[in-house]
Amino acid sequence: MHRKHKGKIEVRPKVPVDGHLHIWYTPGVAEAVKAIKENPGEVFELTWRWNTVAVVSDGTRVLGLGNVGPEAALPVMEGKALLFKYYGGVDAVPIVHRARDPEKFIDFVKTIEPSFGGINLEDISSPKCFYILDRLREELEIPVWHDDQQGTAAVSLAALINAFKYVGKDMKRAKIVLFGAGAANFALFRLLQAYGVPARNVIVVDSKGPITLEREELKGTYKWEIAERAGYAKDIENAFKGADAVVAASKPGPGTIKKEWVQLMNNDAIVFALANPIPEIHPDEAREAGAKVVATGRSDFPNQVNNSLVFPALFRGVLSVRARKITDGIVLKAVEALASYSERYFDQGLIIAPMSDREVFVHEAVEVGVEAIREGVARRRVPKEELESEVRELVGVKK
Amino acid sequence: MHRKHKGKIEVRPKVPVDGHLHIWYTPGVAEAVKAIKENPGEVFELTWRWNTVAVVSDGTRVLGLGNVGPEAALPVMEGKALLFKYYGGVDAVPIVHRARDPEKFIDFVKTIEPSFGGINLEDISSPKCFYILDRLREELEIPVWHDDQQGTAAVSLAALINAFKYVGKDMKRAKIVLFGAGAANFALFRLLQAYGVPARNVIVVDSKGPITLEREELKGTYKWEIAERAGYAKDIENAFKGADAVVAASKPGPGTIKKEWVQLMNNDAIVFALANPIPEIHPDEAREAGAKVVATGRSDFPNQVNNSLVFPALFRGVLSVRARKITDGIVLKAVEALASYSERYFDQGLIIAPMSDREVFVHEAVEVGVEAIREGVARRRVPKEELESEVRELVGVKK
Repeated sequence: MHRKHKGKIEVRPKVPVDGHLHIWYTPGVAEAVKAIKENPGEVFELTWRWNTVAVVSDGTRVLGLGNVGPEAALPVMEGKALLFKYYGGVDAVPIVHRARDPEKFIDFVKTIEPSFGGINLEDISSPKCFYILDRLREELEIPVWHDDQQGTAAVSLAALINAFKYVGKDMKRAKIVLFGAGAANFALFRLLQAYGVPARNVIVVDSKGPITLEREELKGTYKWEIAERAGYAKDIENAFKGADAVVAASKPGPGTIKKEWVQLMNNDAIVFALANPIPEIHPDEAREAGAKVVATGRSDFPNQVNNSLVFPALFRGVLSVRARKITDGIVLKAVEALASYSERYFDQGLIIAPMSDREVFVHEAVEVGVEAIREGVARRRVPKEELESEVRELVGVKK
Repeated sequence: MHRKHKGKIEVRPKVPVDGHLHIWYTPGVAEAVKAIKENPGEVFELTWRWNTVAVVSDGTRVLGLGNVGPEAALPVMEGKALLFKYYGGVDAVPIVHRARDPEKFIDFVKTIEPSFGGINLEDISSPKCFYILDRLREELEIPVWHDDQQGTAAVSLAALINAFKYVGKDMKRAKIVLFGAGAANFALFRLLQAYGVPARNVIVVDSKGPITLEREELKGTYKWEIAERAGYAKDIENAFKGADAVVAASKPGPGTIKKEWVQLMNNDAIVFALANPIPEIHPDEAREAGAKVVATGRSDFPNQVNNSLVFPALFRGVLSVRARKITDGIVLKAVEALASYSERYFDQGLIIAPMSDREVFVHEAVEVGVEAIREGVARRRVPKEELESEVRELVGVKK
C-alpha cells in the first residue's frame, strides 16, 4: 500500500484559485507581506501558520526499531501528519533532519520556528529528548510537545485517573508503581506530581530494580531526579507488594511482568501493560492474578492507551487560540477532559474512550483552548461557544 | 481574502484512511521504515518525498519590499506553494527560517534535505544568493533551484530565442544588452553562454553604466565575472547603439529606459522591460521608438515573461524521474521546450505561451524528465509515453 500510493499526504490549495492568482501571488500578496511586517502577530491571521505543526524527528529512536536515521523515519512522521489532520484538523508537515547533536537540534528548531504554529517532537533518543524538550518549551514562542514523553504520559494519566474512579479508590493516597523508566514513564512521573500525587507514593522501577538513592551509578543522569523524589522499595517484589496500580512502559512481553508480582498487589489492582506489540503481561493473565482494571497499548484489547487520544485534540485547542505554549496546566486540562468524557464508558467496563468516538476530540480541544485563554498564554480570545463551533468544523464532527 | 481564508494551502490525506490506520501508522508503517533503512532510495517510493519541494526563504529580499524577515515572507512562499500544485502537481511546503548568514543558510538546507525531493530557493538578498545556490547545487543530492535567478533567466531566454526567430535574426550573432545586473540578469548572462551566445556579444549595464574592466571598484564582487567576459561599451548610448535586443530587469519605470536609447537600436529591435509593477519603458513607447517585439512582466500586456511558465513544469519533470540535480542541460531543455511550444503563438503576434495554456507545462515537464534520464542524473528510468501520462495525471491536463 505504501508503494502503491507513494506517500500518504499531499499539499492542496484550500482557496479558490482560478481567476484569483493575482490575490494569492503578486501583486496582491504584497498587502499581506506589508501587514505582517507592520504587525508580526498578523502572520497567524494571514497565512496558514496558525494551523500548522511540524512533526520533527532526527530518526534516532523510531518505533521499536531504534536509530534508523531521518530518511527511514519519514514514513512514521508522515503517518503522524495524517493522524493530525484526520483527528484534529491540523495541517502537519513531516520534517526529518540531520541535526542529531542536542544543541544543533535545538538551534535547528529555533531556525525553522517562523514557519509553524507548533512543534511536535517525535522518535528522539533519550536522554537528549528531555533536554531538547525542556529547552524548546522555554525558548520558543509557539507550543512544543514531545509525544513520546508527554503524549504517552498524558493519556496514561487520564486512564489512571479513571481506573481509580472505577475501583473507587483515592488516587492521591494510593501506591503506584511505574515499571520502566524511559521517556514515557519519566514524563508520567513528573505529570503525576503536577496532578497532585505525592512523589513518595510512586515507586519507579527500571531493568535493574527500584530507582533509589542507593543506586549511586545513576548520579548525573535524569534518573537521579527520580531517585531523589520517588518512594522507596528494596526490590521488585517489595515494589509490587500492596501497590494499587502499575503502569508498565517497558520491554515487550510476554513475561516481562510476572503473574506472581501482580498477585502481591492490593485488592482491585490496576495494571497497565503498554508495551507494543506484546504487552508486558497478557491481560487475561493479569486478571487471573487479581487485576480488576487492565489496559494495554493495543487496539485489539479493551482500554487502549493510545497517544492519538490526546495530541490531535491538544494541538487543535492551542492552535485555535494561537497559544504561545503548552503549560502543565493545559496538559492537565486535556487529561481531565479526556478522563471525564470517558466516564460514560464505565458501564461498558471501559475506562477510556475508543478512538472511534470523535466527540472526545472536540471536548478536549475546547477545554484546552479555554484553559490557554484563562492562563493568559493565548494570542486570541474567543468565547467558548464560538471556539466549539470552529473546532467542530475543523475536525468534522457535527453536534 | 487573506484574512478570510487564513492561508491558501492545507495538508490532506491522499489515501483511504477509515479502516486503514494500522497500515499508515503503527504497526504497518514499520515495514516501510525497515525497507528504507535497508535501501535508502526506497524513501522516494514509499513516502511523499518524491513529489515534495521546500520553498525556502530567509525573507531578506521579498518582492519589491526588501528585507522584511521570515514571518512577513511567509505569504509569498505559501503563494508559491499554491502555484507549484496548481500548475505542476507538486507538493510544496513553505519554509521560512532565521539562518541569514550564508554558511548557516547552507547548513540549514543540508540539515533539512532528507525531508524533501527538491529545494526551491526564493527571495534571498544578493550577492549571497549566488554563493548559496552554487554551494547547494554542488552539495545536495536533490534538485536545487533559485527561482529569482534561474527562473527569470530561463523564461527570459525562452522568450528571447523566440523573439529572434520571430524577427528572423540569428541570436548567436546578435548584439544583446542586459539592462540591470541583479540576480536575474546575472543568471541570464551565464545561461546565454551555456546556450551558445558568445559573452562578447552581450553588454551588461548597471546603474553606473556598462560593466567593463575599467570599473575597478567591482573587483572582488560577482560583477567582476561580467567585466571579464562581457562585451565592451563606453556608455549607455554606446551600449544601445546597434543592439538587436535589450533585456531590462532593473528599477521599475516609467522612464528607466529612455525612448531615445531604443531609437539607437538596430532594425526590428527586441525590448523586454521586465520590472514590476511598472515596466522600465511602456510597451507603446518602445514600439513608437521602433521595437518590433516587446515583452513585460505583466499579465495585462501581451508577452508576459513569467517565472511560473518554468518552475512548476521543471520540478514536475525532475521529481517524476527522481533526478539528483538540475543540470544546465536540463535548464536549457526546459527553455527550448517552452520556446518551441510557444512558436504556435507567432501568428497571434506573440512570442511566448500564456499561463492559461496548460499544455505547455506537460510539454516542458516531459522534455525535462527525458533529458534528466539521458544525462544519467535520474534515479528512475521510465519510457517517455509513460512519463507523459503520469505528468498529465499529476497536473490535471488531459490529452
